[in-house]
Amino acid sequence: MTTQALIDQIRKKKSFLCVGLDVDLTKIPIHLLATEDPIFEFNKAIIDATHDVTVSYKPNTAFYEAYGIKGWQSLQKTINYINENYPEIYTIADAKRGDIGNTSSMYAKAFFEDLNFDSVTVAPYMGKDSVEPFLAFQNKHTILLALTSNEGAFDFQTLETVGTDLYKKVLEISKTWKNSENLMYVVGATKAEYFAEIRKIVPNSFLLVPGVGAQGGSLSDVCKYGLTKNIGLLINSSRGIIYASNGVDFALKAREEALKMQTEMASILADKNI
Amino acid sequence: MTTQALIDQIRKKKSFLCVGLDVDLTKIPIHLLATEDPIFEFNKAIIDATHDVTVSYKPNTAFYEAYGIKGWQSLQKTINYINENYPEIYTIADAKRGDIGNTSSMYAKAFFEDLNFDSVTVAPYMGKDSVEPFLAFQNKHTILLALTSNEGAFDFQTLETVGTDLYKKVLEISKTWKNSENLMYVVGATKAEYFAEIRKIVPNSFLLVPGVGAQGGSLSDVCKYGLTKNIGLLINSSRGIIYASNGVDFALKAREEALKMQTEMASILADKNI
Repeated sequence: MTTQALIDQIRKKKSFLCVGLDVDLTKIPIHLLATEDPIFEFNKAIIDATHDVTVSYKPNTAFYEAYGIKGWQSLQKTINYINENYPEIYTIADAKRGDIGNTSSMYAKAFFEDLNFDSVTVAPYMGKDSVEPFLAFQNKHTILLALTSNEGAFDFQTLETVGTDLYKKVLEISKTWKNSENLMYVVGATKAEYFAEIRKIVPNSFLLVPGVGAQGGSLSDVCKYGLTKNIGLLINSSRGIIYASNGVDFALKAREEALKMQTEMASILADKNI
Repeated sequence: MTTQALIDQIRKKKSFLCVGLDVDLTKIPIHLLATEDPIFEFNKAIIDATHDVTVSYKPNTAFYEAYGIKGWQSLQKTINYINENYPEIYTIADAKRGDIGNTSSMYAKAFFEDLNFDSVTVAPYMGKDSVEPFLAFQNKHTILLALTSNEGAFDFQTLETVGTDLYKKVLEISKTWKNSENLMYVVGATKAEYFAEIRKIVPNSFLLVPGVGAQGGSLSDVCKYGLTKNIGLLINSSRGIIYASNGVDFALKAREEALKMQTEMASILADKNI
């Protein structure tokens, strides 16, 4: 998907919500466990109930790999279901991959070709030649970890390197890579005060923002510093939406939570005249 | 597997060779493509031909994920084959994972429980709480990326942070994490001159060393600075061994290459009286 198609969808739905499909079999409604593929049935119900207020779904691959081949099958069925039924939806494989060049090419093939995701998250530690193979794909995005939403973000990402913090170096240096127009960045919402700094380095890039909701980040704070004239934000919520209820009404309750966020987003966009 | 069991195996075989099972269908012998699972058949033949001169196998997950569910099945069959037939072998899932805490737990479950690998490679960028869930597993190792073997290693890993380079900070800080005795580190062989510095920080830890062979690193240089009294090194070779021939003699030729490395290793161990 092109960046413009994503922007168009956001404007149409007045939503920049991404729903994280991090499905844990110990947390989903018990009645689903009797089905042949509980993870897929759960995702399908969540997607059907929320697709009109959501612009993106983001399965985190860890939650599928934990169930081995069956989990990988659920992931494939989920992405196929989205692509077939809701082709306007922007899909993110939250995989945090990254390896030497020829190996990163295989990961890019896995997520962009075999599974047909629109984007994949990538870790920057191994540098340029570990990321460029992802960037080589047209109309696919590579979402680079910059400043993550967890406590451990302060172990290395905010270390002061010569001149500036490591995460800022990641932003700066990645802009010089080939096909860098295909980059987006992960920036955690739990550190809203960093957004102003980040926007100085990447004024227009889309930022994928986890950490709103369960992890404590504030949507309005993030928007205050992070929004651009083309929105430039995808706000992810996982547990706060998909586990809003673990009863038979789980999809309905998920919709209610997603709708709340979409309503807040629509209001912010109207206020800012975007 | 315990570290001691790995050391015992190394002493017995006089080998600290790890063979990377990075199987690319475009590079394997054509006659295997007619089989039901060419990747597994390739691995099985390589393993059967090299297990007595090798202490470890390291499939890189990218090469399996690139083939979707079929690829994941090949990975599962490969690890099961090793565990059932050669239980003394030390297995490494070269996956370079890492995510926020609850997500890293799912990855740990995937590789340590579902697939039953002895170890997994993990990227450090997200810090302590992204790595500790892996370290919590007893008799399993977490192999943290420190200084990798690719060109991009110099983009961030060697940036000077306050006091010292980033990769050294990764080594230093990771030593303070809970269950850090379960850590090993990836250190690329293409930078043998760094090993002396690294040994000052982690004098006894096992280092997984890619980059010997196709990537240009020298075994004797690495050993000169990296060997410890308990060996402390696993030297990986992938392409140089598994693609030694793409004819029907591929397994035989792979064995010849592995044997050459084992012979050199045995000689180094004898010279150093280890």
